[in-house]
Amino acid sequence: MAKIGAPAGSGADFLTCPFTFMGVPYATEAAGSGAAILGVPFDCGTHPTRIGARYGPNAIREQSGLVRPFQPPRSDFNPLERLKVVDCGNVAVTPSVVDESFESIERALDHIVGAGAIPVTMGGDGSVTLPQLRALHRHHPDLVVLHIDAHTDTYPGDGNAIHHRYNTATTFTRAAEEKVVDAARSIHVGPRGTVSMPGVFEHTREQGYQLIDGDELFGRGFENVLASIQEQLAGRPVYLCFDMDFFDPSCAPGVCTPTWGGATAREGLSLLQGLAGLNFVAFDVNTVSPPHDVGGMTAFLAGTVMIQCLALACIARGEAD
Amino acid sequence: MAKIGAPAGSGADFLTCPFTFMGVPYATEAAGSGAAILGVPFDCGTHPTRIGARYGPNAIREQSGLVRPFQPPRSDFNPLERLKVVDCGNVAVTPSVVDESFESIERALDHIVGAGAIPVTMGGDGSVTLPQLRALHRHHPDLVVLHIDAHTDTYPGDGNAIHHRYNTATTFTRAAEEKVVDAARSIHVGPRGTVSMPGVFEHTREQGYQLIDGDELFGRGFENVLASIQEQLAGRPVYLCFDMDFFDPSCAPGVCTPTWGGATAREGLSLLQGLAGLNFVAFDVNTVSPPHDVGGMTAFLAGTVMIQCLALACIARGEAD
Amino acid sequence: MAKIGAPAGSGADFLTCPFTFMGVPYATEAAGSGAAILGVPFDCGTHPTRIGARYGPNAIREQSGLVRPFQPPRSDFNPLERLKVVDCGNVAVTPSVVDESFESIERALDHIVGAGAIPVTMGGDGSVTLPQLRALHRHHPDLVVLHIDAHTDTYPGDGNAIHHRYNTATTFTRAAEEKVVDAARSIHVGPRGTVSMPGVFEHTREQGYQLIDGDELFGRGFENVLASIQEQLAGRPVYLCFDMDFFDPSCAPGVCTPTWGGATAREGLSLLQGLAGLNFVAFDVNTVSPPHDVGGMTAFLAGTVMIQCLALACIARGEAD
Amino acid sequence: MAKIGAPAGSGADFLTCPFTFMGVPYATEAAGSGAAILGVPFDCGTHPTRIGARYGPNAIREQSGLVRPFQPPRSDFNPLERLKVVDCGNVAVTPSVVDESFESIERALDHIVGAGAIPVTMGGDGSVTLPQLRALHRHHPDLVVLHIDAHTDTYPGDGNAIHHRYNTATTFTRAAEEKVVDAARSIHVGPRGTVSMPGVFEHTREQGYQLIDGDELFGRGFENVLASIQEQLAGRPVYLCFDMDFFDPSCAPGVCTPTWGGATAREGLSLLQGLAGLNFVAFDVNTVSPPHDVGGMTAFLAGTVMIQCLALACIARGEAD
Amino acid sequence: MAKIGAPAGSGADFLTCPFTFMGVPYATEAAGSGAAILGVPFDCGTHPTRIGARYGPNAIREQSGLVRPFQPPRSDFNPLERLKVVDCGNVAVTPSVVDESFESIERALDHIVGAGAIPVTMGGDGSVTLPQLRALHRHHPDLVVLHIDAHTDTYPGDGNAIHHRYNTATTFTRAAEEKVVDAARSIHVGPRGTVSMPGVFEHTREQGYQLIDGDELFGRGFENVLASIQEQLAGRPVYLCFDMDFFDPSCAPGVCTPTWGGATAREGLSLLQGLAGLNFVAFDVNTVSPPHDVGGMTAFLAGTVMIQCLALACIARGEAD
Amino acid sequence: MAKIGAPAGSGADFLTCPFTFMGVPYATEAAGSGAAILGVPFDCGTHPTRIGARYGPNAIREQSGLVRPFQPPRSDFNPLERLKVVDCGNVAVTPSVVDESFESIERALDHIVGAGAIPVTMGGDGSVTLPQLRALHRHHPDLVVLHIDAHTDTYPGDGNAIHHRYNTATTFTRAAEEKVVDAARSIHVGPRGTVSMPGVFEHTREQGYQLIDGDELFGRGFENVLASIQEQLAGRPVYLCFDMDFFDPSCAPGVCTPTWGGATAREGLSLLQGLAGLNFVAFDVNTVSPPHDVGGMTAFLAGTVMIQCLALACIARGEAD
Repeated sequence: MAKIGAPAGSGADFLTCPFTFMGVPYATEAAGSGAAILGVPFDCGTHPTRIGARYGPNAIREQSGLVRPFQPPRSDFNPLERLKVVDCGNVAVTPSVVDESFESIERALDHIVGAGAIPVTMGGDGSVTLPQLRALHRHHPDLVVLHIDAHTDTYPGDGNAIHHRYNTATTFTRAAEEKVVDAARSIHVGPRGTVSMPGVFEHTREQGYQLIDGDELFGRGFENVLASIQEQLAGRPVYLCFDMDFFDPSCAPGVCTPTWGGATAREGLSLLQGLAGLNFVAFDVNTVSPPHDVGGMTAFLAGTVMIQCLALACIARGEAD
Repeated sequence: MAKIGAPAGSGADFLTCPFTFMGVPYATEAAGSGAAILGVPFDCGTHPTRIGARYGPNAIREQSGLVRPFQPPRSDFNPLERLKVVDCGNVAVTPSVVDESFESIERALDHIVGAGAIPVTMGGDGSVTLPQLRALHRHHPDLVVLHIDAHTDTYPGDGNAIHHRYNTATTFTRAAEEKVVDAARSIHVGPRGTVSMPGVFEHTREQGYQLIDGDELFGRGFENVLASIQEQLAGRPVYLCFDMDFFDPSCAPGVCTPTWGGATAREGLSLLQGLAGLNFVAFDVNTVSPPHDVGGMTAFLAGTVMIQCLALACIARGEAD
Repeated sequence: MAKIGAPAGSGADFLTCPFTFMGVPYATEAAGSGAAILGVPFDCGTHPTRIGARYGPNAIREQSGLVRPFQPPRSDFNPLERLKVVDCGNVAVTPSVVDESFESIERALDHIVGAGAIPVTMGGDGSVTLPQLRALHRHHPDLVVLHIDAHTDTYPGDGNAIHHRYNTATTFTRAAEEKVVDAARSIHVGPRGTVSMPGVFEHTREQGYQLIDGDELFGRGFENVLASIQEQLAGRPVYLCFDMDFFDPSCAPGVCTPTWGGATAREGLSLLQGLAGLNFVAFDVNTVSPPHDVGGMTAFLAGTVMIQCLALACIARGEAD
Repeated sequence: MAKIGAPAGSGADFLTCPFTFMGVPYATEAAGSGAAILGVPFDCGTHPTRIGARYGPNAIREQSGLVRPFQPPRSDFNPLERLKVVDCGNVAVTPSVVDESFESIERALDHIVGAGAIPVTMGGDGSVTLPQLRALHRHHPDLVVLHIDAHTDTYPGDGNAIHHRYNTATTFTRAAEEKVVDAARSIHVGPRGTVSMPGVFEHTREQGYQLIDGDELFGRGFENVLASIQEQLAGRPVYLCFDMDFFDPSCAPGVCTPTWGGATAREGLSLLQGLAGLNFVAFDVNTVSPPHDVGGMTAFLAGTVMIQCLALACIARGEAD
Repeated sequence: MAKIGAPAGSGADFLTCPFTFMGVPYATEAAGSGAAILGVPFDCGTHPTRIGARYGPNAIREQSGLVRPFQPPRSDFNPLERLKVVDCGNVAVTPSVVDESFESIERALDHIVGAGAIPVTMGGDGSVTLPQLRALHRHHPDLVVLHIDAHTDTYPGDGNAIHHRYNTATTFTRAAEEKVVDAARSIHVGPRGTVSMPGVFEHTREQGYQLIDGDELFGRGFENVLASIQEQLAGRPVYLCFDMDFFDPSCAPGVCTPTWGGATAREGLSLLQGLAGLNFVAFDVNTVSPPHDVGGMTAFLAGTVMIQCLALACIARGEAD
Repeated sequence: MAKIGAPAGSGADFLTCPFTFMGVPYATEAAGSGAAILGVPFDCGTHPTRIGARYGPNAIREQSGLVRPFQPPRSDFNPLERLKVVDCGNVAVTPSVVDESFESIERALDHIVGAGAIPVTMGGDGSVTLPQLRALHRHHPDLVVLHIDAHTDTYPGDGNAIHHRYNTATTFTRAAEEKVVDAARSIHVGPRGTVSMPGVFEHTREQGYQLIDGDELFGRGFENVLASIQEQLAGRPVYLCFDMDFFDPSCAPGVCTPTWGGATAREGLSLLQGLAGLNFVAFDVNTVSPPHDVGGMTAFLAGTVMIQCLALACIARGEAD
């Protein structure tokens, strides 16, 4: 017989904060929390036919009422309580204005990481990852990325205009150039489907990244691939960049650049569970695009991914026992 | 080049509170404000085919981004700034559980009025008015109601079960019985269309209320009717109960009990403007039912009604000059 | 505290018939009733871009839960009870197969009129009127039509193929040719907007019909026009053919051939009320097209039109006192 | 070249009953039928964010036009004809009023089972199962339940208020307490995903039930699990409670409490086929929530589940040869 | 019995061009036509909550199948035939990249006007007007604008960044500064509702423009206002800029910045008809935003506005007799 | 930083053709192209509850902006460029008028095949295949069909009326009778689910066709089945008829006759890839029904199928190296 909404900050039991992730407290300070939710409502606006990830964070919050904190068979700990999770609201950004927005995102992440909390962000399109990496790298110079996505986001995009350099397709090209990740130990998992440039996988490897494409992932099997990932990333601070388009459009239609042939929900969630034990320092769940979603499915699945991320954070912090 | 969302409470300019009415600050205390927004996400759940007003407050907040603070030709004052308006979030209620929920609503209103602020609430279905009247009456013993609605909400509903006594159709029957309003000076404006009981208007008058039905309203003309209302309510503390179904379903389809033949947006907004000068002490805008809305139209119109209410509040407080 | 649905035929109070108009009893015999609801789920399928009126009857039944039987200020009689209204279900038709379907429609109407009940039918597109007129004319040789519509439905359509001769645009051309209406005393009210043939109003008059177009209707005013109609049709058995596209698309978007500039709900319903006293023998409310409707608005408005038609039937039968 | 709708009861071939499951005859008496369809349009209304299963039965009827009676490779018998299936309409219930509604449901089931027919019911939320079990248990004292669901519905919910005791989460807790099922021989199949209470699976087993959770089901494989079920339930009268949320939200988004990671349609339908031979005495397909459905998918899948249930009923009655 | 689509350019009668306005021929050259349709699928992307007018042109084309060429009572000429109207497709633009896109728009308009055709463009948001005015002014140095809109689009927006200077709110500020219109003879008609800046009407007049706001328009009556407009603009080459938000959201919900209290369809279309006789040299119908539209209503109304514009063009060219 | 739309035919770089498949050039002549896209917007209109495939071609074009030309790991060739693909628009058809429409379809295919291009058509419902086979058979007398579908489309349908003989259920019955395919070497792959006639698979084989039903396909595994298909069809000119309902409704809800239990996107696309090397002479992708689609998913998946078909065409023509 649940009440609607999060507890209001004041302690007035007759009020609720209407809109936080899974009803955790709203807070503008991350200090004292082990993990902080943060929305990054930015979509840089250059893709000609799909825009709308700016509404992603609020849509995930809305659907998160369907997500519950315990996950049998490991149903003995509640990550929200163990980590004293708070929802810090959204980063202040202006759609289409890349430079100002990136700066805000970087400052917000800096604030959370500086307060000792693990950030769990909700995009926004795939471009929001770069400023987050910049902030995280400052705190974790040996940062590696585990990038689970239908795309590599490693296109050249080397024109002079800002919208040529910084967009959803160029995030990891820029990240490697800026050396905010250790590309050689970072892994792209799952790219598949139709692409607009020949040789894009080769290009990714030339930038120094490792790559396990969708054919390899499903061909080798998750158990085998997970063992490789665990071995490769062991001991390093890991930034998990999870693009919701890793899932097939049958379960995640509302993303920026949907691609057929992806993971089922059962597959995708089991892949995440298999990452337990890695030293995660940040989670970035992006590309939910509500105008393209149907019935809130994608936002709801993103919320399910996020509670799984929070469980991984809990384990990484040794708080799950 | 607006940023998305309200300023975060902390003063961190890189954060926003994702979801307040027109981006006013989120606050759990109304003290210091001239007017406080409050959501009342309760629908008592007994109507067999339309439920969903519980989502009304958040839908209005979402659409309020389309509403602006100034209203030419009186474009010289911003009610949000003049009244230091805050958004107190939602009342903590449990759908279908009438008694507990009514108690919470009453306490929340008591808190706001006690802090010296004018409450501007967003329903919730038409049942949420009764507990608000209880709270307001405690502070204003000579309270009168101006009830603008397609229905009188004066059905008997006198069975023993709680769901027979307290629901959207019986609000003003109970209010008169409980003497929380001065029925003889209170006015129902606009009831029209098909009804489920013969003689419902006669019944309303028998309870002591005044009634100007839709035929009379549109027949006499707004100017004439407004003069009567102004005269009748002058000097009394007025509770404005505005049911969004006063509007025709062509502009407000997403309400609990839509009824054809209502006011256009231009008519409805001009009626509200004509109320300037009354001594309003509370505003209650209800029955937005998002599952039945199309494209957020009704929530957006409700947001427009609310900024008009805030302008009326500003004038009532002498803050518009 | 209403239960959902109509009483089941058996008298078992724990069962309901799930889907009748306003919850009236389901019956396959009209005998004993003063008026019978009948769905005519046929759309002949030749319009290239709008099809779907076949779903109209069920959509109106679904939305009719929002319609109530009493209509203040004449709130003293319930037409459903006075006329012992029943819902006979739908005519058995096969979409796109004109000849067989028209035969079924004609037989169904014959059955209802033969049983002494006034038929109140729900289309179906505008083509369903012709077979109804054929049946009605057999019982009322001096039948006249009052056709309220955004279109005249008097196009020539004189090719040899059946789909050229019988479709939504040719209904009244065929009706005049077949002499199943007295064209000289029948009136088309309200045609307006863009048309696909020059001189279509002149053509209508050449077929012998009277015509009051939209400009004239709104220019002269309803009171004036109603007086003419009352005088013209007095004493004759009247078939009311009401096409929902008479309403503006702002209140009736879900019709077969929407046309901007139509009546508001308040106007349309007041026009209907002004027809009280005519000797109605049949009501035909058509062209609700649910796939093009938004939020069931048009079906709900059609249900409101139908209770008004039932009130007119009640008055025509002298059952309203 | 099918006609739309079911044959009208009267034998008038020009009329159809507009809205029965797969066009079977509408009947208020189950006598003479081997199986009777029944809608149970009740959702107790206490879940804060998802309500609407009350519309489930009609939505399933509407989508059932896409379901056909034969199922290759066993395409030699038509369950609708073999069992003379009828549609008895819906139980008369009042949303949110638990006690009266449960009584009606129990009486309706009593009627059908007493008439010798197998009930095949369409919910309604998961709370509708308890009154059905009460009725079935009276006729079959050794009744066992096969509960296929993403949830166990075995929460304690032991507050005093009726809404604490009877809701979707407590159905099988109450059933075990009331001893209307033989818990020790009843099996919960498929629970998975996030839950709101630690140790819910342990709690289920403590109440005496058997449980095969989702991990075990998909880990052991369907063939293996089906063999266990067949062995366990052999010879007992079996009540199949099938919650549509057993399916993954990618194929059944429109349910009360969707949970990611469920069965595909191919998996779910094959699981049902593997149950052939059990002595089924009742089928209960529930939790279709049309307001949350997309494009009627879930209702259509429920209709497909129901024809499969009818085939199982046919086999159980020895009518499939 | 219409075929779907426009004639294919090749003369092959078994092919159609799938997507032109009202089925006129597709052409990349405007030479030989009296009027040319052109889509301008640009939305500059800076408004935080409403984007999508880039899809406007195709949505209008899709809905234009509901629009017909003749308009009784002037049903004697078909503007499509008289003016040999062609559809030139869309301007090549890149969303969010203002400078390149404006250059393309200007070149496209230059091409059409240079070919002797009257451009009838479909936006795109309100920013697309400026480059069109630049092109038109080159051909008509004494160009005046008749701007029918809920807003004045005369905000200062004088920051340095391109997105501060060029957006939907600053179009006519820039136009006056660049002297591409004769502001003193140009008129803004219809601004109304809530605004984000105090004194915006005064500011408009300070830039030299004339302004008839919504209160004045509806207060004086259309006949009176039209006489003023006719007198004021007589003899000058007129650019009609028609923003679809002039209509009330009840008939045009799918616009960039909807504002309650606007014109009904009947009012808006009659205002346009009253402009017959002016020397129109260009028509610009903008701000249809399909993601915010419901059921294509706004696009369909825009298509109706466009055939009216084509009739005005026909009259302006002396081709209507 | 893509522009929206295809290059305009004129070479004017400021114009685009608004609506072609993946932005290929619009052309009314197929000469000079290796493959030509063609829409076939016909749905014969006899199914009682699902109509709308007439909108399929334009919906696929709209969603094709999400499809890209390269397909890793074979990311070294772009079929659009290699084959100089053009979009010829749509066939001119009249919905519901079978004979005229079939003639147009046949002529259009004749035109394309005669010009030396491989046709890649977008339906339309399943009835559009017959006239295409007639045209193809004239050019390829030893034509075989590979029919991938949830249904066999081999119902008798032998009444006299045209709508009994020619509809979606009888396509391959007629094709075998007319000997426009070599039935003995043609294969139906994938039929499954509920059907309306007993023994339909036996009936298919009696007409001479081969059949691998869904149970066999998923039971044997794709690799095994593909080997059989490759062997069986080697060296013959192959017409690929791909009905989108082969996919499960979870990924393709918007089809004419959805059937649960179909292929996932990953399965369906891998089946197509496994056909590389066959001598394809025509591709026919049909039954996308936009009114029943959700979020354009089915149209987008159809677009993905089509680029795969174009890659197969490229390989068949030896243009992939």
